[in-house]
Amino acid sequence: MSPSKVEFWFDFGSTYSYLSAFQMEGAKDVSISWRPFLLGPIFEEQGWNDSPFNIYPSKGRYMWRDMERRCARDGIPFVKPSRFPRNGLLAARITCLAGARSEPWLPEFVRAVFRANFGEDREIGEPMEIQAILDDLGLPGADLIEQAQTSENKQRLRDQTRRAAELGIFGAPSFIVDGELFWGSDRLEDALAWRWREGT
Amino acid sequence: MSPSKVEFWFDFGSTYSYLSAFQMEGAKDVSISWRPFLLGPIFEEQGWNDSPFNIYPSKGRYMWRDMERRCARDGIPFVKPSRFPRNGLLAARITCLAGARSEPWLPEFVRAVFRANFGEDREIGEPMEIQAILDDLGLPGADLIEQAQTSENKQRLRDQTRRAAELGIFGAPSFIVDGELFWGSDRLEDALAWRWREGT
Repeated sequence: MSPSKVEFWFDFGSTYSYLSAFQMEGAKDVSISWRPFLLGPIFEEQGWNDSPFNIYPSKGRYMWRDMERRCARDGIPFVKPSRFPRNGLLAARITCLAGARSEPWLPEFVRAVFRANFGEDREIGEPMEIQAILDDLGLPGADLIEQAQTSENKQRLRDQTRRAAELGIFGAPSFIVDGELFWGSDRLEDALAWRWREGT
Repeated sequence: MSPSKVEFWFDFGSTYSYLSAFQMEGAKDVSISWRPFLLGPIFEEQGWNDSPFNIYPSKGRYMWRDMERRCARDGIPFVKPSRFPRNGLLAARITCLAGARSEPWLPEFVRAVFRANFGEDREIGEPMEIQAILDDLGLPGADLIEQAQTSENKQRLRDQTRRAAELGIFGAPSFIVDGELFWGSDRLEDALAWRWREGT
């Protein structure tokens, strides 16, 4: 039996993607494919120039309370960010670079960026913060940021965002297992159950 | 210890409310307050004149596939309705009437209407279908429909829809436990867990 695989599609500005990045730690026997993408262009196609949580205030108020409860439940830190959504462009590019090179630090970097955004209220849109996160992981921050900005690597993220739209992805986080799309941090369990049902 | 209570807010046209109406059968030790309301006016406040699942096609496509999977998982019938969303006005009025009279058939009626809409592709917006559903439950369908159309009872539903908006409800299903709002069929578990945590 070949190892089962789940694609985890996320945006660093997305609150529920933060929850899933940590839920992923519990998914031990599955190969995770980390797929950062940008929600911005996908939201624009839906006619939104901002997060729907900002556009629809009652939905936004609910989401922040729900995040507070869910983070408490999952034991992960939560501080309501003073800016929302933050720009995840550079962090996503770094993740694309790490993915292309199969770097073992990829998951740790992803979680560190999410924690900085939603657990520590840090400006992850600023290169200085991303560099600090990389340096803290014992990585050459300044070099990696430079390498992430090559046109080849920028294209990786653009391709991945286009691919997300082609796959029918309209929000984050999303999971894909054997061609099946699951949307929302509360669908990870379904996604993993799908794998087991199909894999037997 | 006073009995714990969950308010279940739903619209008969809402797919995920269908799932929750049946999930409620499993919530044995909790007092359920059935709260039908109309999503229409609430969506209008958000600038939508239709279901967001119709307005945003990729979200709609996903929802129908998700419903198919979740109904299979939960063992409840599913037939993609030929009209969506259907008008739940009359069914909601009947439910309000049943609530005001503490009728024991209320939950069974609610589930029968949802099943007709999403399991049998029946036109629940038509009084004939609602009457057939009531008659099948051994109730005086024609009389109940007449009683549901009094101005007193119509006002009940209007009041309840206004109350939903006041409570910050922006979608269905929603659950309220001890003043805490939970949105979506996948938050019922959280809602009931909240009850236990707060009730001890």
